[in-house]
Amino acid sequence: MTSKIEQPTMDDYPTRKEQTPALLYRKDPAVYGDAASGPIDTETLASYDAKGYLQIESLITRDELEAYRAELARIGSDDELKKDERVVVDQASDEVRSVFEVHRISPVFAELARDPRLVDRARQILGSDVYIHQSRLNHEPGFSGTGAFWNSDFETWHAEDGMPRMRAVGFSVALDDAHGHNGSPMVMPGSHRTFVSCVGETPGDHYREPPKQQEIGTPDQNSLSILAEQHGIDVLTGPAGGAHILDANCMHGSSGNITPFPRSNVFVVYNSVENACEAPFAASEPRPRYLGSRDFTPVE
Amino acid sequence: MTSKIEQPTMDDYPTRKEQTPALLYRKDPAVYGDAASGPIDTETLASYDAKGYLQIESLITRDELEAYRAELARIGSDDELKKDERVVVDQASDEVRSVFEVHRISPVFAELARDPRLVDRARQILGSDVYIHQSRLNHEPGFSGTGAFWNSDFETWHAEDGMPRMRAVGFSVALDDAHGHNGSPMVMPGSHRTFVSCVGETPGDHYREPPKQQEIGTPDQNSLSILAEQHGIDVLTGPAGGAHILDANCMHGSSGNITPFPRSNVFVVYNSVENACEAPFAASEPRPRYLGSRDFTPVE
Repeated sequence: MTSKIEQPTMDDYPTRKEQTPALLYRKDPAVYGDAASGPIDTETLASYDAKGYLQIESLITRDELEAYRAELARIGSDDELKKDERVVVDQASDEVRSVFEVHRISPVFAELARDPRLVDRARQILGSDVYIHQSRLNHEPGFSGTGAFWNSDFETWHAEDGMPRMRAVGFSVALDDAHGHNGSPMVMPGSHRTFVSCVGETPGDHYREPPKQQEIGTPDQNSLSILAEQHGIDVLTGPAGGAHILDANCMHGSSGNITPFPRSNVFVVYNSVENACEAPFAASEPRPRYLGSRDFTPVE
Repeated sequence: MTSKIEQPTMDDYPTRKEQTPALLYRKDPAVYGDAASGPIDTETLASYDAKGYLQIESLITRDELEAYRAELARIGSDDELKKDERVVVDQASDEVRSVFEVHRISPVFAELARDPRLVDRARQILGSDVYIHQSRLNHEPGFSGTGAFWNSDFETWHAEDGMPRMRAVGFSVALDDAHGHNGSPMVMPGSHRTFVSCVGETPGDHYREPPKQQEIGTPDQNSLSILAEQHGIDVLTGPAGGAHILDANCMHGSSGNITPFPRSNVFVVYNSVENACEAPFAASEPRPRYLGSRDFTPVE
């Protein structure tokens, strides 16, 4: 009589499965291409590889910036759109804070999302064709910006969207100046080499909870202290029209914004077509497609 | 028959009296002394005069810093003290966040508050003997620092404590490194030349409200936008053991702190003995003495 031995599912990045958090080594490269395969030079690629992010002082033209700002204003004043589930509206002010899948909602931002200045860099870093896993327009107004606690995007994409490996990048194009005082993104440079395995179990419809109140998928304070001691914290300041590229697993967050100066940006996540999402690694079903796409068609 | 004409009380800094906010010119100097009368040199005094603040890279020794940190820890672990009305305890964590009148509670900080490195500078700026209007030990822990909205200290001291003129300075001695990312103080340099007259009427026991929820005495967003456009915002970073001196009317605030790095400081307010507090200008009675002293004895 032979007994069948059940094979455990291989998961290099287990999370939301144990009662104690853990720091795990990354088992994927951060850079898959080289200087010959795109616009990023060797030195900048090496810096991205080491830090998990890179900054571009000026990515779009002044005219493009004005056009994107006008589109942001247009979207913000579209009352019909506020009823769309992909649009996050601040209850108190009735202002649009986030628009998911903005590359499907707005032809203007659709063009930005397939712009070679972004896509060529994404292909170069990921070493393959890419598709858009998520896009988002963010508007953090002055005086009342609430910020976001530390998190690794990959942890969520892996657990809830079924992204198998660390082979995705986020591009954030700044529509306002990011100063040291208006809630600019903070990153722990080098933290992308470590995966923080989080505790707890993903509840159903977890994505509906306001991010501030989410505890599941949030790194524990001890792990964050270790990473911050080891890597320090960089504040990503820079002018409107600039951009930064963030590795999927780079630990990042932002403080609140009490200044009068708003911060808006467009965020586009490119995933390698060789890393298409599967079943979620720690959730009963994938999040809605506007949060994690299941359309793996490469960007042309 | 002569009718007595009632003289209106002269108040150069009316606040909490009208229904609309206003920006008013300052009618007092910011610097009353000169380089001959204390340790601050001419150039630094001029910069303080222009900006309303100055930074001191290193004010206390490493040994003193260690002693103050030890005293902070001792105070934080004194359960008896947590019952004192002068001590603000975070309900969730049971941790001490602020200790008012710390120069009367702790002999260690009493010594700091009368230290010539502080007092000589205060006398120089204010051009007279000084007394301690308020002292406070602050501990903002990592991960959960809530920050403070924009405010002018003088607006409160004038309205609620009866401080007549702008002739007081606050010294903040840093017990932790203040980075660009852990909720360091932000100031609008030059804003001390403008008094923001606030709206509303001071309710009784106003000081008991958590600062975050106070609206009375809070500058309006329009005034803050004008000041920020005009003056910009400086983030006061610096190492532990350093200090900054802030004019009573300099607009300041701080973002939250989501980093693991705490920020603690000792804050001592010196007021000119020629500017002793009178009846409050916009409150029915003065705040408790641990918030605004009525003992005008000069520091020796």
